[in-house]
Amino acid sequence: MNVTVHGRARHFRTVTFDVRRNAVLLIEQRLLPHEFRIVAARDFRQTARAITDMVVRGAGAIGATAAYGLAQGARAFQGRSLAGFQRHVDLVSATLESARPTAVDPVNAVNYVHQAMRAGQTVEERQGLALAAAEEFANDDVRHCEAIGRHGARLIRGGINVLTHCNAGWLAFVDIGSATAPLYAAQARGRKFHVYCDETRPRSQGATLTAWELAQQGISHQVIADNAAGHLMQRGRIDLVIVGSDRTLGRTGEVANKIGTYTKAVLARRHGIPFYVAIPLSSIDWNLRTGFDIPIEERHESEVLGAWGVAAGRGRSGPARRGYVRVANPASGALNPGFDVTPAELITGIITPVGILKPRELWTRRRELGWPG
Amino acid sequence: MNVTVHGRARHFRTVTFDVRRNAVLLIEQRLLPHEFRIVAARDFRQTARAITDMVVRGAGAIGATAAYGLAQGARAFQGRSLAGFQRHVDLVSATLESARPTAVDPVNAVNYVHQAMRAGQTVEERQGLALAAAEEFANDDVRHCEAIGRHGARLIRGGINVLTHCNAGWLAFVDIGSATAPLYAAQARGRKFHVYCDETRPRSQGATLTAWELAQQGISHQVIADNAAGHLMQRGRIDLVIVGSDRTLGRTGEVANKIGTYTKAVLARRHGIPFYVAIPLSSIDWNLRTGFDIPIEERHESEVLGAWGVAAGRGRSGPARRGYVRVANPASGALNPGFDVTPAELITGIITPVGILKPRELWTRRRELGWPG
Repeated sequence: MNVTVHGRARHFRTVTFDVRRNAVLLIEQRLLPHEFRIVAARDFRQTARAITDMVVRGAGAIGATAAYGLAQGARAFQGRSLAGFQRHVDLVSATLESARPTAVDPVNAVNYVHQAMRAGQTVEERQGLALAAAEEFANDDVRHCEAIGRHGARLIRGGINVLTHCNAGWLAFVDIGSATAPLYAAQARGRKFHVYCDETRPRSQGATLTAWELAQQGISHQVIADNAAGHLMQRGRIDLVIVGSDRTLGRTGEVANKIGTYTKAVLARRHGIPFYVAIPLSSIDWNLRTGFDIPIEERHESEVLGAWGVAAGRGRSGPARRGYVRVANPASGALNPGFDVTPAELITGIITPVGILKPRELWTRRRELGWPG
Repeated sequence: MNVTVHGRARHFRTVTFDVRRNAVLLIEQRLLPHEFRIVAARDFRQTARAITDMVVRGAGAIGATAAYGLAQGARAFQGRSLAGFQRHVDLVSATLESARPTAVDPVNAVNYVHQAMRAGQTVEERQGLALAAAEEFANDDVRHCEAIGRHGARLIRGGINVLTHCNAGWLAFVDIGSATAPLYAAQARGRKFHVYCDETRPRSQGATLTAWELAQQGISHQVIADNAAGHLMQRGRIDLVIVGSDRTLGRTGEVANKIGTYTKAVLARRHGIPFYVAIPLSSIDWNLRTGFDIPIEERHESEVLGAWGVAAGRGRSGPARRGYVRVANPASGALNPGFDVTPAELITGIITPVGILKPRELWTRRRELGWPG
């Protein structure tokens, strides 16, 4: 999407690859919204660490990052032994796949690149195929998000109030985003609407990333505390909820997404408000049989016990220094599950690149949706 | 309750009155948990501002503060004209009652002191009666909380996990607290249990005040993001919810409390988890006929857009400096309703000083509960 840097709008993708330097280039999302900077991960370990440390985050963006990271790792291999190359590639793959355990996109991305490499007869051929496959994976992500926007735009009628949780915007993908795609598409059709951004503690991706995205695109919005959505629904001030997903089970329609998503689905059901999940095909897990099997990442307690921000008064001239403050009682600890699972029965529809489906239709229409067999 | 200051446990109340200086003494709650300090409000306007600015907060604590503030204002009157005195008292009362619009305790406190003053024939007599009534109001608050603890302790079985929201602890009252009273009483009976403290954005009273209280008393606890409770309930890790209330409608059993309470009640219902509200009698509003008539305070957007804390690394030696950091996108605004209303049908029971009642029993048993008439 376009970002206004020094007063000039320029187009950026969240993740790109620098072939000459064999580096993955990432928007440093932990600095947003206070500073816009591109950083380079110079080897596959740096790329995996950028995923773990949330330099890059979001389903599609970490998928593309893992795809590029695998190509990067493969291209760094020196030698001609295919067996040695394959052992190296397995190490690279395992490192990238385990960087964020709840997400399925990195696993799907790695599988996609593996599949493409098989056609190569030499190490060099496989290295070239890996890069081409990673580029293709990233471009698919963009096409999927465009299609989600086309299908989802009809939900965004003029004048409505939309609630979204966390950031499933273009920063969470290579471009455009999943939950935001219908918003951007509706805006392009001239519709006016309002978005409430759950701040999304503990990492505040709604207050930082989604609010920044919507402000950049000129969409009317307000940040709310995660606690406020129930009250706003009760008073009739929310018409629609759209969220993204880190892993959606193809067999059951259950959705793993940022912690707090399940709560919003329960509230939406109580108030009869439609609850939609927007996903590219790469976020579908075709293997697991129940949401209870989705590994829920437990993140460090410091995320809950404090907050990242810039000191008041700064941030207007020069790059603002973002720092951590401890909010909670110093003698207390925290529990910090990063994700939760929303059952299919609470989901009105899943906005996919092939259309808006009922959760159970993921399985009945699996052949169109990239089911591997 | 006891607070360990410089390694020594001493007993404190949240609100007390210094007769000689005609000052209301308050624990400066905005500095907790990083610093424990008592501040003096030297006239009724300072006392009202301390309520508005949340130096003191919580249903019972601001009730007692308003009672003392009225006595303070009455005692500052110079002259013998009863008519002039009454005009002054009306101004003091209006100032104190409007300091936090959602709470009913200050209104009930002011009415209580007014009632007591009527017996006085002179300004001086009324000033003396005002102070005696304020002390009585504060002592009643303590007795009510003790009784809540006695009745509620049976809910806190050994080994259970309790969720609480915001701070309805002793800091929210004159002493002991409402939602915490059953916890402290169960601890005194030797039971072990665990408490999850919702951090309670935007002002984080759970992470700061409740966590500090429980740590001071040696009760096992962890802070969680407000987003995490739904997931923990889904996984069977919460057995009971106890919250406080800023205003409970005697006619309907509806409960106004800190924003996010309603959400927890909806989640608890879905999971069949008992949801209790603990209240002293001073939090009951006998007038309003529906929860939609409760004024919901809209607080400043800066609370949602940032956080208060101490910079990492500090806070171990000397008083820590608590500062505000901006978390959200600088170009974005926020909506900040401070309270929400939970309907009676979601409430398992209301723990009152006279016993645990069904919400509808507030009205049928109104004569025992201080119904004015």
